[in-house]
Amino acid sequence: MEHIDKVKGIYPPSRRSAPQDRAVSTAVIRRLPRYHRYLGQLLREGKARISSSELSQRMCVTASQIRQDLNCFGGFGQQGYGYHVQYLYDKIGELLGVNEHYSAVFVGLGHLGHSLVSSAMLERRGIRKLAIFEKDPALVGQTVAGLPVLPAEEAETWCRRHKVDLAVLAVPREQAQPMAEMLACAGVRGIWNFSDTELDLHIDGMEIENMHLSDALLGLCYRLRTSKGQASDKGREEDK
Amino acid sequence: MEHIDKVKGIYPPSRRSAPQDRAVSTAVIRRLPRYHRYLGQLLREGKARISSSELSQRMCVTASQIRQDLNCFGGFGQQGYGYHVQYLYDKIGELLGVNEHYSAVFVGLGHLGHSLVSSAMLERRGIRKLAIFEKDPALVGQTVAGLPVLPAEEAETWCRRHKVDLAVLAVPREQAQPMAEMLACAGVRGIWNFSDTELDLHIDGMEIENMHLSDALLGLCYRLRTSKGQASDKGREEDK
Repeated sequence: MEHIDKVKGIYPPSRRSAPQDRAVSTAVIRRLPRYHRYLGQLLREGKARISSSELSQRMCVTASQIRQDLNCFGGFGQQGYGYHVQYLYDKIGELLGVNEHYSAVFVGLGHLGHSLVSSAMLERRGIRKLAIFEKDPALVGQTVAGLPVLPAEEAETWCRRHKVDLAVLAVPREQAQPMAEMLACAGVRGIWNFSDTELDLHIDGMEIENMHLSDALLGLCYRLRTSKGQASDKGREEDK
Repeated sequence: MEHIDKVKGIYPPSRRSAPQDRAVSTAVIRRLPRYHRYLGQLLREGKARISSSELSQRMCVTASQIRQDLNCFGGFGQQGYGYHVQYLYDKIGELLGVNEHYSAVFVGLGHLGHSLVSSAMLERRGIRKLAIFEKDPALVGQTVAGLPVLPAEEAETWCRRHKVDLAVLAVPREQAQPMAEMLACAGVRGIWNFSDTELDLHIDGMEIENMHLSDALLGLCYRLRTSKGQASDKGREEDK
């Protein structure tokens, strides 16, 4: 911690220009959520600064890659001083939209929907959770994780009235497309889609993030099949 | 369907050589789960063949990209004949390890764990679900989605005895690393990690797929912030 004052002195936000989006390449942008996650972890551990070599070891990225990436934020100190964790965390968060205070609703209260509703993931990224929409009348009227469960058919009117930015869609595959269209009509601009189907919504300014868990699973299976310790070499119990 | 016999004639597996892994580039491999998903959807719709231009439209990929990718599988017909859906689906599945009949356990029966246990995603990819491990004694002894819920502390012995290939890890962040080490000791070779922390396991032949949902969420927030219809232009209800 001996250099912490100097470190702070290196990047006081007032003397540094704010990061310009156009100065940050798409490739760097794609890596930012991971930096944000690691920096958040460092903050939780009470670390005020970290060297690029230590961050490099933790993140399994080369120190030179880290220096290149974080230079975009005016967030690099002189050699030997390291990074100011809180400053970088805030700047990266700002660029990623953490401070935009987006509002979100959830659609679908199956197990996956329930786990997303219950998670602190959204609040931690500055997103306000407003309500849950669900088809099952047995669930409508309940309060889950402090949020009202409203009838799915009211989603459009409700989201329009409350200017909802973001919807977390966790409905069965066949319900995903009509619900997404309804949300788009209501002015929702972002859909985080867990419905294992790609949405066909080509609307200007509409952003969709499809979460295909099964694609990741197949990627893992491929690596299992092609990695050294082949399962077939193991002489499985059930094959005996 | 008029050319279906000819189409079939173009790629009878017996007359075509099996796809060679070394002939398929990493970039193609990364795209394969998505092809597999779309071809599965076509099969559910009862489609026996599809032209590259139709597949291209559906997948929002250029037809030439599709032709290039699928050529690796001997799965392309003459122009005008299209692809044999079942053949391609099977070949891609084979390459991805769908036919390896991997065995899997689940660790953690929170909402997310529960939703993964209940999903048909694993069976559909040929993976056999064996058991669930959970710390909470109130849940141990129950049967969830047809699987026994066993005490977490028995995971190592049990997985070793049953030669488990794959574990789906959905435990709180602080439990993830010790549990992953225990599973690795038990010979589990693949971990599908939903614990929002990166595992530090550098073991030869061990494959880890980290599912960082929050990274995807932040990516979506970034796109929301930088896309045309900025939320700040909307005049939000709460700003009035």
